Amino acid sequence: MNYEDYFRRQLDGLRREGRYRVFADLERKAGAFPIATYRGPHGERDVAVWCSNDYLGMGQHPKVLEAMHAALDRCGAGAGGTRNISGTNHYHILLEDELAHLHGKQAALLFNSGYVSNWTSLSTLAARMPGCVILSDELNHASMIEGIRHSRCETRIWRHNDVADLRDKLSDLDPKVPKLIAFESVYSMDGDISPISDICDVADEYNAMTYLDEVHAVGLYGPRGGGISERDGVADRLTVIEGTLAKAFGVIGGYITASDTVCDFVRSFASGFIFSSSLPPAVAAGALTSIRHLKGSTVERARHQDRVARLRRRLDEAGVSHLDNPSHIVPVMVRDPVLCKRISDILLDRYGIYVQPINYPTVPRGTERLRITPSPYHSDADIEHLVSALSEIWAEMGLAQAA
Amino acid sequence: MNYEDYFRRQLDGLRREGRYRVFADLERKAGAFPIATYRGPHGERDVAVWCSNDYLGMGQHPKVLEAMHAALDRCGAGAGGTRNISGTNHYHILLEDELAHLHGKQAALLFNSGYVSNWTSLSTLAARMPGCVILSDELNHASMIEGIRHSRCETRIWRHNDVADLRDKLSDLDPKVPKLIAFESVYSMDGDISPISDICDVADEYNAMTYLDEVHAVGLYGPRGGGISERDGVADRLTVIEGTLAKAFGVIGGYITASDTVCDFVRSFASGFIFSSSLPPAVAAGALTSIRHLKGSTVERARHQDRVARLRRRLDEAGVSHLDNPSHIVPVMVRDPVLCKRISDILLDRYGIYVQPINYPTVPRGTERLRITPSPYHSDADIEHLVSALSEIWAEMGLAQAA
Repeated sequence: MNYEDYFRRQLDGLRREGRYRVFADLERKAGAFPIATYRGPHGERDVAVWCSNDYLGMGQHPKVLEAMHAALDRCGAGAGGTRNISGTNHYHILLEDELAHLHGKQAALLFNSGYVSNWTSLSTLAARMPGCVILSDELNHASMIEGIRHSRCETRIWRHNDVADLRDKLSDLDPKVPKLIAFESVYSMDGDISPISDICDVADEYNAMTYLDEVHAVGLYGPRGGGISERDGVADRLTVIEGTLAKAFGVIGGYITASDTVCDFVRSFASGFIFSSSLPPAVAAGALTSIRHLKGSTVERARHQDRVARLRRRLDEAGVSHLDNPSHIVPVMVRDPVLCKRISDILLDRYGIYVQPINYPTVPRGTERLRITPSPYHSDADIEHLVSALSEIWAEMGLAQAA
Repeated sequence: MNYEDYFRRQLDGLRREGRYRVFADLERKAGAFPIATYRGPHGERDVAVWCSNDYLGMGQHPKVLEAMHAALDRCGAGAGGTRNISGTNHYHILLEDELAHLHGKQAALLFNSGYVSNWTSLSTLAARMPGCVILSDELNHASMIEGIRHSRCETRIWRHNDVADLRDKLSDLDPKVPKLIAFESVYSMDGDISPISDICDVADEYNAMTYLDEVHAVGLYGPRGGGISERDGVADRLTVIEGTLAKAFGVIGGYITASDTVCDFVRSFASGFIFSSSLPPAVAAGALTSIRHLKGSTVERARHQDRVARLRRRLDEAGVSHLDNPSHIVPVMVRDPVLCKRISDILLDRYGIYVQPINYPTVPRGTERLRITPSPYHSDADIEHLVSALSEIWAEMGLAQAA
């Protein structure tokens, strides 16, 4: 066994498939979003970022930065330990209270990332209920899938957003066994939205717990940014709502909100929670400020939706087709990993526009795409520049133009 | 199935065992470490923290805070995406270069925590080598154990730090199958140190990869803070060195360093890396500054060891026995979860000293302890106060006094 050779051959395989990933070296510019300095093979240049998940630009909001500066001065850089061993900072307590309030739940629990919150919460809840069966939407995020795998529970995959299929799968199960339905509200790559209320109806009917991932919705939907579950008025019907502090809230970290008992259970039994150093106080302070701001302010959400609508309209007018969906995510399908990368390279090199190509395993093979995420800070001129660039590339490459 | 009832009963079980965990609500005070404001049932008070893993107090170092302030102003709060999708910030690149250099490796890869770095690197490396057998030290950290479990590879547990047993286990295996030896340098709860060089000898003999967790050693040992592997001059013999930015470096995050190929392999195939938002630029900037500082400055390490030696000597003189070990971790064994919690409560309430009780699952049942971690910022007076408090409690409770 030659380990280096083995790993090298695996990487060569990625290259042959055209899906070897090259990370863009960026330096975001607070106060100038969506502009970042890009350091590439031909030196440094400013680019407009069109694929960030800092959806509302809260990562540059002066109130958020001010809160982080203050917490740094007050408490220092790190938390200094796990939550149990000296690492619970007062900002964590305040942030968990705020998150519980945001979702109308009794409690919340912080994790170092949304990935960890899904992985560790799902695996802990399911693995510790003997006989538990997990019912998982087929398009759930990798972090949920890994958590489900790690639980080693029996799993039934139901067709994406298909409530009838979910009901069929539930009706097959022993009424006495614990059941956990795992799904998302906004699916990040296609931007479609699940029928939460209908899923809750079926869950009630079959006495199943519900676990909803709202990472691409919190801060963005609902009158206070409580996500699709708030918008639809169904937050109280869900057992667990999971979210992130890294997207609309602009910082880093993940969380669950649920009853006191459920949060305490995960807190007390989840390896991925117990054995991790906690988030820096300044991160918690920044996220807290961001959530509080977006609870009271709707201008960011309104401007965000306006930018999304404008981009869609202009793409339609230019004949650049994109996946229709009811969210803020604008997927422009390319359906080929090599071409997708090539278009992304041209956008960057010729137009100073950065949109990362999205390929397998983030999306299924054959559905490679440019995933465009407008923010409140993308101006009309930014939109025109993007649309005309895509339009030129589409013409040059002979790509199908929409009617 | 009544879910709430079920979870509540599980929590009641923890309470009955005396190992239900209550987190201390602390507000660390930059510039005044080890002092923190504690908010408890009887209101607010200042306490001296004696169980932090910010071992060198770098979390309050002015250079670290300055770097974080500057990066916040420059790049904003969060990174805005996963490493692949707009979330690679220039500070991440600089930090990975610095980490590779610290350990004399070709490359490094950042994760959101040490837990995630172990879990995702071990599971990815092992699961993707068909037939791989993992040889795991029996006292490895939970994050390694979970990563190993998640890989679903065949695993052989070898006796703690027992090279002969490791050799026996290796000699049983087919010479052709891939093998991965996973172990730590400083074991966090007992503070003992592994014979890295001997383990590498055996690994070479049987053509096994080596994966060394140095989270409780980086920044603390070796002339530049490269850990025990640097101190022992064996860093180049290890396939992977894993470390944390949350302990001696005082911030948050985890990493691996290895060859270009190994890091690229994990980067390209690890779900827990690919699908996580990356660390905030300010976190990377703070860690970078901390590492650079500790590469060149030895005063923190010298003072740290001096404090550890003084505390040990004074505990010996006071007859408070503690586990002998060659590291900076001072375990005072209590061996009972209820008593351990009671002593911790008395220290906090009566003496303003915070040392969290350590119980199962962090340590095996029956080995409950106070795990004391002196820092360069604990003064002689702090040490006297701690030792006399323990001495009084030991006398009051009739606990065995050392000769």
